[in-house]
Amino acid sequence: MNDKKLSTEPYKGVRDFYPENMAEQRYMFEVWRLTAEQFGFQEYNASVLEPAELYRHKTSTEIVNEQTYSFTDRGDRAVTLRPEMTPTVARMIAGRRRELSFPVRWYSIPNLFRYERMQRGRLREHWQLNCDIFGIDDVSADVEIILLANEIFKNFGAENGLHYEIHVSSRRLLEALYDSLTLDKEIRLGVTRLADRKNKMEVDEFKRQMQSIAGETTSVILSFLNADNINVVPETIKDTPAYTEILTLINTMTDLDCQLVFDPTIIRGFDYYTGIVFEVMDLDPE
Amino acid sequence: MNDKKLSTEPYKGVRDFYPENMAEQRYMFEVWRLTAEQFGFQEYNASVLEPAELYRHKTSTEIVNEQTYSFTDRGDRAVTLRPEMTPTVARMIAGRRRELSFPVRWYSIPNLFRYERMQRGRLREHWQLNCDIFGIDDVSADVEIILLANEIFKNFGAENGLHYEIHVSSRRLLEALYDSLTLDKEIRLGVTRLADRKNKMEVDEFKRQMQSIAGETTSVILSFLNADNINVVPETIKDTPAYTEILTLINTMTDLDCQLVFDPTIIRGFDYYTGIVFEVMDLDPE
Repeated sequence: MNDKKLSTEPYKGVRDFYPENMAEQRYMFEVWRLTAEQFGFQEYNASVLEPAELYRHKTSTEIVNEQTYSFTDRGDRAVTLRPEMTPTVARMIAGRRRELSFPVRWYSIPNLFRYERMQRGRLREHWQLNCDIFGIDDVSADVEIILLANEIFKNFGAENGLHYEIHVSSRRLLEALYDSLTLDKEIRLGVTRLADRKNKMEVDEFKRQMQSIAGETTSVILSFLNADNINVVPETIKDTPAYTEILTLINTMTDLDCQLVFDPTIIRGFDYYTGIVFEVMDLDPE
Repeated sequence: MNDKKLSTEPYKGVRDFYPENMAEQRYMFEVWRLTAEQFGFQEYNASVLEPAELYRHKTSTEIVNEQTYSFTDRGDRAVTLRPEMTPTVARMIAGRRRELSFPVRWYSIPNLFRYERMQRGRLREHWQLNCDIFGIDDVSADVEIILLANEIFKNFGAENGLHYEIHVSSRRLLEALYDSLTLDKEIRLGVTRLADRKNKMEVDEFKRQMQSIAGETTSVILSFLNADNINVVPETIKDTPAYTEILTLINTMTDLDCQLVFDPTIIRGFDYYTGIVFEVMDLDPE
């Protein structure tokens, strides 16, 4: 019995849920669950342990090499604590693709692990709601998912435009822009990475770095990234399916009384984002 | 995109929860939650990651050395995936012992990890309900906990005596027996370990091994371990507080319409079990 020598602190980077914290978490998860189920989503889950190879192709190299919790088990298998849920759900859908009736609407509330520098409100374990639709190819799936996100915020008592905004863009539209400029693969990657950081940089520094990557195409790229309305993007990409798609989405959502803000700086990190991408922006950080 | 080369199987030893499995798990957890809360227990949780040192003193050496998932993190800390919840809840209670109003009734439904040989129905990750009362020293805490266990089985539609039995013993009574025989520490440990395996061994083999450990005290030990009623234990221990305690427990529970079966072979593995111990026995393995 050496209790006095033992620390009562949790492992560095994770937190304890005492009953009062647990009650808050349960309330939050309950709102997520009820809303997801109202939209016809079914809950699934999996273990936090996954074969390490699951992340090798689909997750960003930075996360796999520097931020995962990975180790070798007693049977010499490479194991990773899941840093995100998408590879898991893709694996599970693939495993039953013959038996499932598509479209499939699934949700989960996984805990995820990333070994990264800790910041306020950002520890090494976090929980998130994942909602996925499989088997719908058109923009109606994006409409559903964004409506669901909006409904969750409403169910927490928040109002679109007052407490939060839903910012939307399209990775496909970005590719259409790159096509119109005939950029090669390397440059596309560099421009995308930089664009993702636009709002965290000073304007002049951003321009300088973009110039060094994109050369003479910089002004068109900047006019795209500065567009605050879908109507003012470069004319050269207005004739593409990607443009029609996001225009349809924005108009449909407006008709459904859910306003979207076009924001071409919404990129999302992972390579598997290919179509519509969106983020809900908190207008009131308190 | 090398999807075809990637296995769709989960990591060896854990399972996926497709929506139909998830629905079963949710139903089970919901019965656990509602019953625990009817008894005034509050839910807590913690991360699956714990400092490895938390298990060094309190968990059996076999589990720590051979069955834990342990690794070193990128900051050179020794981490363990929790193999049981008791050290965690003890740590959390210790961390707030000045602020909490005792008695404290807490429950959790943690997932736990043990790297062991897999058997039917026994994988390397499992979920369990943990209910603890802190700050009550007498048998009334055992009464509460056993009533709660019984109520959970009733809420699943099972009947005490028909579908299950609650077997009870006392580690303290076992120690009283050892005291009466003035056994030394080594022999106590050997007898306890062997007694724990009694029902998995042939009678003759069990006697032979007990003889080799306990020598001339074997007959008294066997008469204790074969007692199927609290009244027929050796007379030498009937005058002890431990005997009064378990007798009170069994009588109180009978009065509360919850029959207990005295079973001295109920030992429980961990060293931190010191008083009343019980197990619910399934009478209908289907």
